[in-house]
Amino acid sequence: MGTVLVNVSISLDGFLAGPNVSVENPMGEGGHRVHDWMFGDAQDEVDASVLKAMEGTVGAAVVGRRTFDVGRGPWGDTPYPAPTFVVTHRAHDDLPMKSGTFHFVTDGPASAVRQAKAAAGGKDVTVLGADITRQLLRAGLLDEMYVHLVPVLLGTGVLLFEHLGGEHIELEQVSTVASADVTHVRYRVLK
Amino acid sequence: MGTVLVNVSISLDGFLAGPNVSVENPMGEGGHRVHDWMFGDAQDEVDASVLKAMEGTVGAAVVGRRTFDVGRGPWGDTPYPAPTFVVTHRAHDDLPMKSGTFHFVTDGPASAVRQAKAAAGGKDVTVLGADITRQLLRAGLLDEMYVHLVPVLLGTGVLLFEHLGGEHIELEQVSTVASADVTHVRYRVLK
Repeated sequence: MGTVLVNVSISLDGFLAGPNVSVENPMGEGGHRVHDWMFGDAQDEVDASVLKAMEGTVGAAVVGRRTFDVGRGPWGDTPYPAPTFVVTHRAHDDLPMKSGTFHFVTDGPASAVRQAKAAAGGKDVTVLGADITRQLLRAGLLDEMYVHLVPVLLGTGVLLFEHLGGEHIELEQVSTVASADVTHVRYRVLK
Repeated sequence: MGTVLVNVSISLDGFLAGPNVSVENPMGEGGHRVHDWMFGDAQDEVDASVLKAMEGTVGAAVVGRRTFDVGRGPWGDTPYPAPTFVVTHRAHDDLPMKSGTFHFVTDGPASAVRQAKAAAGGKDVTVLGADITRQLLRAGLLDEMYVHLVPVLLGTGVLLFEHLGGEHIELEQVSTVASADVTHVRYRVLK
């Protein structure tokens, strides 16, 4: 079975987006800064190889409702070319897009992960959204975290981890590679 | 002149100490977890070399009042063998200890940094405490941050950065080295 993982860029102070996230501004104010390393012409060789290694690895996605709401417009499609499971309280018919179908899951994140794994054909299940990441962490449903640590302090915005609460969650550092700007660390979540 | 830097171990979710920090428990509940890599018998070679490289680099320390209050007992001395400047509102006579003297600075963090630089004899000025770190960052008085990223989610406790607020602070990634467990990243603060 594929790995359930979150693959996320954060500022050194832990923000994955700026403040005032909206449909018009899905990364929040100034939040694009944490994603700049993925774009641009003069891309670092290490960053490029990190991105290259991700290609074709995603078999399904699990997305929080809020991430779906603000992301759908900019994406104009599923975020990955794969079936995408939206965790929500509001039932909705399947929504076929160009590269995949949005499925709306109303019976909770565990069910969404189960369905995504079944749909992923052995590839990875990627998780998008801070809330859903925390829910899956707390429920012991997240296998890995791939964190891209960007050299900036945003000061405010959407924290990936907030105060998770509860017991410590131990991680195993699987790999660290650094480009000129970004430190890419992969963790396994120990259960 | 020496570099003004904070040299700090944090969990992946950004905590430098657990909750309920007190004189009896200066790392907070469970907070020792983020410092474990520095101790123990079976120390990783990379971690050992990181620690080794720090030896003898500190010429003076700047310490927040709260860090002084909770740390003084466990330290039983100045935290480094160097003059140590405590930023506080309460005036106090110099307090000579075995390896250095505590000086109490009542006219603010900028003054403490100035005095510490003068006392450091060209060596580094190290900064201890989350509040004082944030104050110096905001005031443009911090030159570097050396962050030791520990593979655990504490879930709650004392955040190094909290919501700093204000404008983005850009950093330059100076170096990254990883041991089996810990990723050590050094940043220059761009001003």
